[in-house]
Amino acid sequence: MTFQRIAIIGFGLIGSSLGRAIKQHGLAGTLVAVDRDEAARAEIVSLDLADEVTGDLVAAVTDADLVILATPVATYAEIGRIIAPALKPGAIVSDVGSVKQAVLRDLAPTLPAHAHLVPGHPIAGTEKSGPGAGFASLFEGRWCILTPTAETDRTAVDAVKALWHAIGSDVEEMDADHHDKVLAITSHLPHLIAYTIVGTAVDLEDDIQSEVVKFSASGFRDFTRIAASDPTMWRDIFLNNREAVLEMLQRLTEDLFALQRAIRWGEGDFLHERFTRARAIRRSVIEAKQA
Amino acid sequence: MTFQRIAIIGFGLIGSSLGRAIKQHGLAGTLVAVDRDEAARAEIVSLDLADEVTGDLVAAVTDADLVILATPVATYAEIGRIIAPALKPGAIVSDVGSVKQAVLRDLAPTLPAHAHLVPGHPIAGTEKSGPGAGFASLFEGRWCILTPTAETDRTAVDAVKALWHAIGSDVEEMDADHHDKVLAITSHLPHLIAYTIVGTAVDLEDDIQSEVVKFSASGFRDFTRIAASDPTMWRDIFLNNREAVLEMLQRLTEDLFALQRAIRWGEGDFLHERFTRARAIRRSVIEAKQA
Repeated sequence: MTFQRIAIIGFGLIGSSLGRAIKQHGLAGTLVAVDRDEAARAEIVSLDLADEVTGDLVAAVTDADLVILATPVATYAEIGRIIAPALKPGAIVSDVGSVKQAVLRDLAPTLPAHAHLVPGHPIAGTEKSGPGAGFASLFEGRWCILTPTAETDRTAVDAVKALWHAIGSDVEEMDADHHDKVLAITSHLPHLIAYTIVGTAVDLEDDIQSEVVKFSASGFRDFTRIAASDPTMWRDIFLNNREAVLEMLQRLTEDLFALQRAIRWGEGDFLHERFTRARAIRRSVIEAKQA
Repeated sequence: MTFQRIAIIGFGLIGSSLGRAIKQHGLAGTLVAVDRDEAARAEIVSLDLADEVTGDLVAAVTDADLVILATPVATYAEIGRIIAPALKPGAIVSDVGSVKQAVLRDLAPTLPAHAHLVPGHPIAGTEKSGPGAGFASLFEGRWCILTPTAETDRTAVDAVKALWHAIGSDVEEMDADHHDKVLAITSHLPHLIAYTIVGTAVDLEDDIQSEVVKFSASGFRDFTRIAASDPTMWRDIFLNNREAVLEMLQRLTEDLFALQRAIRWGEGDFLHERFTRARAIRRSVIEAKQA
């Protein structure tokens, strides 16, 4: 399963990791890295991460049989409009975005009927950003979710699926709205909470703030790592998965109030029961080899 | 700096790590491990972690020049009452608990005037529990906070300080109430949030719940790790640092509502600004070598 020409648009942590994996497994005749940032392009060239490196979207996707968007979701509509006239018949367009209904809403309408849209989302990443932060093994043993519609060309779906399998991922298909709901709780809410708690600490009086960093090993540092993720990407995720995030946030707030009340009234048994329940989930995560 | 006889009461993750470090650095003539749990004692014996292993508090602390409590905070008052008559003149009593005002409140009144209480809190740990989970290097490069009062014997404080230095920790002294405030934000709130969000996920409909585990690599798994911490220990922490935790929780809730509102109203600039601010803290944590 190889592609003649693969263009990856946006060559940051995910895009460059995918590019590295594609090169390592020999899955593309020509791998094209597209980045609008000149410094990023220079880094891609110096790290020798792609066969062609360009800021020109049209040149990049011309003759490509696979185009993968790895930019913040808010850019999809504009990128779609620019690349649409240059897409060859049968070209597959995919992405790695963390929200999937927005892809159907923003990107699908811009593409020509002769191109096939297969939205995707690899469940992998780190808190780091940029082409230098990527690595080829990022997707090994991780899930990639594809969200084609009932109308999507099955050959195109299978081709994208084969690519992810080839670089070591397991692939699951689901509806875009179901994806967005699952990711709201597993990913979006944890990031929102991490950003919030770190922000709360930043606002503390100066004398405590330096100590927050000093004694961060007690739990806080894990939140700072999550909150180090790319702000632009995360802004777009929250704005494009608004309803599911707000619903999960409402549930979380209720649960938090219940614990707050138990602390206030000294209800130790309630706390112990809730903590024990939560602890059991860790075992499931370890058993599912996602730890 | 060595002690003739050190008794560590409670030989779980922290107690057994401390025991291992003390043995490795040759800081005790005799190291006594005390655990009320028979299975834990058998494990301590089979791992050869101490010179004496007992469930008898009085026998353990008799003739000890240093006694360290490493049990949940709620047990301190009872342990204090049992060991008090057996403490020799000049004996130092310390602990490793995550809250420090409660130690002055619950443990101090039980001890005889001829013993010296030097409360301590090593800022180190993992989500694992039990004697088998400990390791000697746990405290290396980490902070240990001591919270003596103005009346505490300085020689005793220096002796405890020297012990922590010897096993690789940096030591800082502060007031117990200040400690409890700092730890409320750096440790207690992150754990409460992690327990909450994992609990919220547990309550989701069955079809989503299995997927929450499956796709946990997207952020959720970090919370499950934190929420795998010992439920009894954490119940006691929240019940014994109620005011500071409730205050920090109030601040967090306000900040969370501000972000929630921004998501609802599509205020992207506000989100981006908050996320960027939070990201900067990660750099401080890395520079402080606590990452």
